[in-house]
Amino acid sequence: MKKSIGPRTMAFPTPVWVVGTYDANDKPNAMTAAWASICCSKPPCVGVSLRKATYTYGNIVARQAFTISVPSEAHVREVDYLGMASGKDVNKFAAARLTPTAGKMVDAPYVEEFPLVLECKLLHTLEIGLHTLFIGEILDVKADEAVLGEKGFPDIEKVRPIIFGPEIRTYHGIGKFLGQAFAVGKDIG
Amino acid sequence: MKKSIGPRTMAFPTPVWVVGTYDANDKPNAMTAAWASICCSKPPCVGVSLRKATYTYGNIVARQAFTISVPSEAHVREVDYLGMASGKDVNKFAAARLTPTAGKMVDAPYVEEFPLVLECKLLHTLEIGLHTLFIGEILDVKADEAVLGEKGFPDIEKVRPIIFGPEIRTYHGIGKFLGQAFAVGKDIG
Repeated sequence: MKKSIGPRTMAFPTPVWVVGTYDANDKPNAMTAAWASICCSKPPCVGVSLRKATYTYGNIVARQAFTISVPSEAHVREVDYLGMASGKDVNKFAAARLTPTAGKMVDAPYVEEFPLVLECKLLHTLEIGLHTLFIGEILDVKADEAVLGEKGFPDIEKVRPIIFGPEIRTYHGIGKFLGQAFAVGKDIG
Repeated sequence: MKKSIGPRTMAFPTPVWVVGTYDANDKPNAMTAAWASICCSKPPCVGVSLRKATYTYGNIVARQAFTISVPSEAHVREVDYLGMASGKDVNKFAAARLTPTAGKMVDAPYVEEFPLVLECKLLHTLEIGLHTLFIGEILDVKADEAVLGEKGFPDIEKVRPIIFGPEIRTYHGIGKFLGQAFAVGKDIG
């Protein structure tokens, strides 16, 4: 028997990603977002939902581009800060002692210190309610050599991404390997 | 210096959620999806992207509703199976020995054995490319009493959700607590 807890934004896991943009004066900005996911395989796309009140919202509308930087758990404090402060008031990169690197494919900066980065060109904008969904086509993925594993792909256990628990407001690391996808369930059915 | 690995659906973490629907004959279906996330706070909404070729796609279009069941790591084998088999050919609930429970708020079933469930009414449909994004309004969240923690909310360490690594095709558990959100970064800036 399940207990009803009402209509809430309660689902696990959510990512903890940092959206990189430039403002009208080319000031780089970085904002932490959790309402985000890959949303198409061809073309490869990522979606991120933002409130209109955020500085990043206006930057994406104006520049039609953003990056997603995937932080490692070592940067949890910086990431939490980037989700609280606003680029309206401060240069958040400078305050958090992080380095903005200009994207090679799009007009947006990424966080040099974070191990995995997606460069995205705005493809769709959908007003949902309090949040607006921005869908970007992933033009390139970049990763630190140190986190690459088999086949030259990033290894999740080396990237060590952060996981967010909405409503309960907790950050968690990545846990133990549970199995290979499209393999461990093959004996069923 | 970051290494380019091309335009890929590579970002960590992605969720491993199971989409519950009924077909035209009221046969319950369950499909694993990873291109999914919360995408709005008011109204609370969740988005899930599906290929047109999936059985679930037609079910959502026809019934205008779906559920998201969040599996625990103990069910990784069943979840992997639900991502490989198609409801066109088989009753996947029966094959995986899982129990379909009718949603209380929407015309869709959820997985009784999974600890956290979202009941969703279809709100938006957006064609992106290979995948179509379905956005559902979350009408209710339900959780097993056994996974509830402080304030009556589900505890992520009790739910033990599964995390997927795209491209590298690995499943992982939830890891160690890293800190409280909107708190650990307060001393920066």
